[in-house]
Amino acid sequence: MQRHSQNPVLTARQVPYPATLVFNAGVVYHDGRYVMVFRNDYGRDGDPQFDGTNIGLAISRDGVNWTVEPQPLFALEDVQAAFRDVLRHRYPANWVRRIYDPRLTVIDGRIYMCFAIDTGHGISGGVATTEDFKTFQWLSVSAPDSRNMVLFPRKFGGKYVRLERPFPVYMREDPEAFPIWCGESPDLVHWGHHRPVLGPDEVPFANSKIGPAAPPIETERGWLTSFHAVYKDPNLRLEGWEPQGWFKTYHSGLMLLDKDDPSKVIGMAREPLIMPEADYEVNGFRGSVIFPCGMILEPGGEVKLYYGAADTSVALATAHVDDLLARIEPF
Amino acid sequence: MQRHSQNPVLTARQVPYPATLVFNAGVVYHDGRYVMVFRNDYGRDGDPQFDGTNIGLAISRDGVNWTVEPQPLFALEDVQAAFRDVLRHRYPANWVRRIYDPRLTVIDGRIYMCFAIDTGHGISGGVATTEDFKTFQWLSVSAPDSRNMVLFPRKFGGKYVRLERPFPVYMREDPEAFPIWCGESPDLVHWGHHRPVLGPDEVPFANSKIGPAAPPIETERGWLTSFHAVYKDPNLRLEGWEPQGWFKTYHSGLMLLDKDDPSKVIGMAREPLIMPEADYEVNGFRGSVIFPCGMILEPGGEVKLYYGAADTSVALATAHVDDLLARIEPF
Repeated sequence: MQRHSQNPVLTARQVPYPATLVFNAGVVYHDGRYVMVFRNDYGRDGDPQFDGTNIGLAISRDGVNWTVEPQPLFALEDVQAAFRDVLRHRYPANWVRRIYDPRLTVIDGRIYMCFAIDTGHGISGGVATTEDFKTFQWLSVSAPDSRNMVLFPRKFGGKYVRLERPFPVYMREDPEAFPIWCGESPDLVHWGHHRPVLGPDEVPFANSKIGPAAPPIETERGWLTSFHAVYKDPNLRLEGWEPQGWFKTYHSGLMLLDKDDPSKVIGMAREPLIMPEADYEVNGFRGSVIFPCGMILEPGGEVKLYYGAADTSVALATAHVDDLLARIEPF
Repeated sequence: MQRHSQNPVLTARQVPYPATLVFNAGVVYHDGRYVMVFRNDYGRDGDPQFDGTNIGLAISRDGVNWTVEPQPLFALEDVQAAFRDVLRHRYPANWVRRIYDPRLTVIDGRIYMCFAIDTGHGISGGVATTEDFKTFQWLSVSAPDSRNMVLFPRKFGGKYVRLERPFPVYMREDPEAFPIWCGESPDLVHWGHHRPVLGPDEVPFANSKIGPAAPPIETERGWLTSFHAVYKDPNLRLEGWEPQGWFKTYHSGLMLLDKDDPSKVIGMAREPLIMPEADYEVNGFRGSVIFPCGMILEPGGEVKLYYGAADTSVALATAHVDDLLARIEPF
């Protein structure tokens, strides 16, 4: 893939409200413009203590130059009020801590957002829908722990399908070797037919957790699907704020899922799609982290991949879809 | 509660096939007889290494004297074949290791079984249905990790409801402080409206994980619901096989859930319903473990509670429902 010359395409400096780390952005092309929702951890100023997280909205005509809307999508209080209703719970408002890592998918012309939510009981994954990014309908929240949910842009046999990344720790040798699973739903509210898609032991460049990255794009050969893959090396001293040293490299991987059964991996690129090499990927809050959350297939065959770089900014890389497919080997 | 004089009511000696630890049994009254499905860990012979786990079936006319059917419900190979189909996965057969801890609920005259399933990706909870305990229809398997699922015996607004025990570890101070959650389903296949029911920090006699125990029973005041609650004391040296010493006491707790919104706790007994005291509760494979999986409300008001004792046998305790309700304090 080619990194864009204007990288990073979004940084905290472009945000007209308090913003420190601007990364992990879902992107879709919708209604004649590119729409991005990004995670903003604000108030850090180089300090790992931070004030909070919100989600910002940015618009672009070309997918490269972005204008950030004047306000974040919601105030924390709005999120807490929404989930208090959804979860029907009796816990204090601060039981819901934040929502983050949004991914966007357009299905039948409507926008859906998957997200992670931190609560007093752990991490859940959720799905919401909106027409205008002002009013959201909160459709579902999973039991904890799960996150990195991404929706496919069309239905399969009348069912919505999503990939997700549960956090199973029991009965396993490596407590952080988390896999990718898949589920389907008639209504985006009730989810079933959960099944395993890919284990971290099946990825040559991972020795720890993996997870869905951007929502898959449809090609003639199947669903081209990015994922993140973590390689841990305690001997590495990577850039980052963590006082005890940061030693996890997040690569982006690429796999092909069966056109009709998207739980079935039929191909994989044996090498990472991108490895952290550029300055803005290697240096930052958590260095050497590439975390794609948005992938767009242009009519001419160009693929735009938007990824969080070093948990600090949003970067863009491009490739022709045929070149990406050429890297896929049978799985 | 009164322990039954014939306790334990089921031990490995009553099982006509290899059986070592016979415990955690779901029980319902159905078609004029008591029906029990129990977990059987076989081949241990006092050794923590064991050959496997299956599920046995026992029948009783009085709920006290049980006759075990000649064969376990399914061979491991049958379970593996069933889940290979359900999960549509490409992993080897031994990726599915066992199913265990069954609970039974009768809804509209039909028998449903919830169970835990250990796989190469962790622990899932599942739901199946049967008419004859010969043929099972496998309805759903959750993403990992979750278990201790129990179904309510009736629907709420047309939806099935279950309690479950996810294993959230991220973002939490105590990695084993697992809570009780609730979900609902139109068809027992797709599950949604997940919401928190009870955290371990809300149980006076727990300092670690809690989980649903037997399926709830309906009373005039609400759903009388047992749960297990773990109290860890590393200074204790409890009976058991674990070489490093066993120090977890499993109490049974009792709570009352709202009649119309079963995710809402409206009352709780401040003291455990039963604490491990009898010889068969204190001594065994894991001593001081009381783990109810079956609760029956008789027409006269007697409540029968069936519980796994020391992960070794099945015991029975009884009480009048009014006496149990009298122990419930507002929550």
